[in-house]
Amino acid sequence: MTTRIKPDEQRKQQIRAAATRCFVRRGFAATRLLDIAREAGLSKGGVYFHYRAKEALFHDILEAQFTALQSRWDTELDADQPADRALRGLVLTHLQTLEHSPDEARFCNLMIAMASQNPEFRERLEQVLAGMRVRYAELLRRGATAGVFSAGDAEILARGIIALIYGIAAESAGDPQAALPMRAEQGADLAVRLARGPAA
Amino acid sequence: MTTRIKPDEQRKQQIRAAATRCFVRRGFAATRLLDIAREAGLSKGGVYFHYRAKEALFHDILEAQFTALQSRWDTELDADQPADRALRGLVLTHLQTLEHSPDEARFCNLMIAMASQNPEFRERLEQVLAGMRVRYAELLRRGATAGVFSAGDAEILARGIIALIYGIAAESAGDPQAALPMRAEQGADLAVRLARGPAA
Repeated sequence: MTTRIKPDEQRKQQIRAAATRCFVRRGFAATRLLDIAREAGLSKGGVYFHYRAKEALFHDILEAQFTALQSRWDTELDADQPADRALRGLVLTHLQTLEHSPDEARFCNLMIAMASQNPEFRERLEQVLAGMRVRYAELLRRGATAGVFSAGDAEILARGIIALIYGIAAESAGDPQAALPMRAEQGADLAVRLARGPAA
Repeated sequence: MTTRIKPDEQRKQQIRAAATRCFVRRGFAATRLLDIAREAGLSKGGVYFHYRAKEALFHDILEAQFTALQSRWDTELDADQPADRALRGLVLTHLQTLEHSPDEARFCNLMIAMASQNPEFRERLEQVLAGMRVRYAELLRRGATAGVFSAGDAEILARGIIALIYGIAAESAGDPQAALPMRAEQGADLAVRLARGPAA
């Protein structure tokens, strides 16, 4: 895949990775474009050519993460599989991105905190959450109809499953290496357990 | 209760409340003691007399929140009640503190993000999470023995319930008023549903 990425996009990826490390270590306000350039091994101009402000960088990191998750969901999931397997797959894919990259978990937590400091980031988060809620609620309804999930308020359950995912990221903040408090598979099993509920 | 608080402690409470508002709005790095003094309607010296550095203030806000939660848990909970009711009560108490104070939810999210920026805050978070895990795991084991919860890995379930709580706080970051994505009661019901699991 890497060979098909244009050099410009490759350079931007490099800058985003360096910026992510700076943001999660120092916070947003204390990070300067110069710090990001140093971390990326570039000149300040080399960063500035692609990103005029750290707000744009933060925004692009967010978008890159959301897009990557979305495309992993789209490629890995089969619309015909049973609702419980589909649910497990969605949650597992999300948790694996956090499990494989500690800085992605840390950035997720930073993004949540930044939402109360920056209205633009907050609105983008709201949109993403809304999209996830629709997707999970549909799946929960499909599972309830098929009898694999016990009936319940699909909207609230969807929010609970999303809370479980973001909360696993939050709990990783207690670990020096940002290790998740459980394996991604165990987290996905908990989501299915929550969806399944008491047997009818 | 207020009449029994010493004037010094009352002043410190006032400073902590102002600091919480500043921290969640601007972030930790961008907040100066002077900003906190202005927000509290005090002189810079008035803040400095009680808090020499914003690190100490952040630390004290954390401790005040943990202590308040602990004492609410201790006073409201009856050790003899069934495990499912006890679990519901613990989660409900925690979520209600977030529901009643949007800045407490925002501060919770900021604290999670700050943990990867400051080793001292991270270690304190780790301790608090460890304490919560012991408490929830004990309750889950008691419930499994009594047959109100289906068997499962109590350690992982405890982490899942804590994730649910912190994730509900995280999801509130998408709302302009930091409203929780569900009522505290609904969140507590989800925790019990997760603990109960499939009927044996």
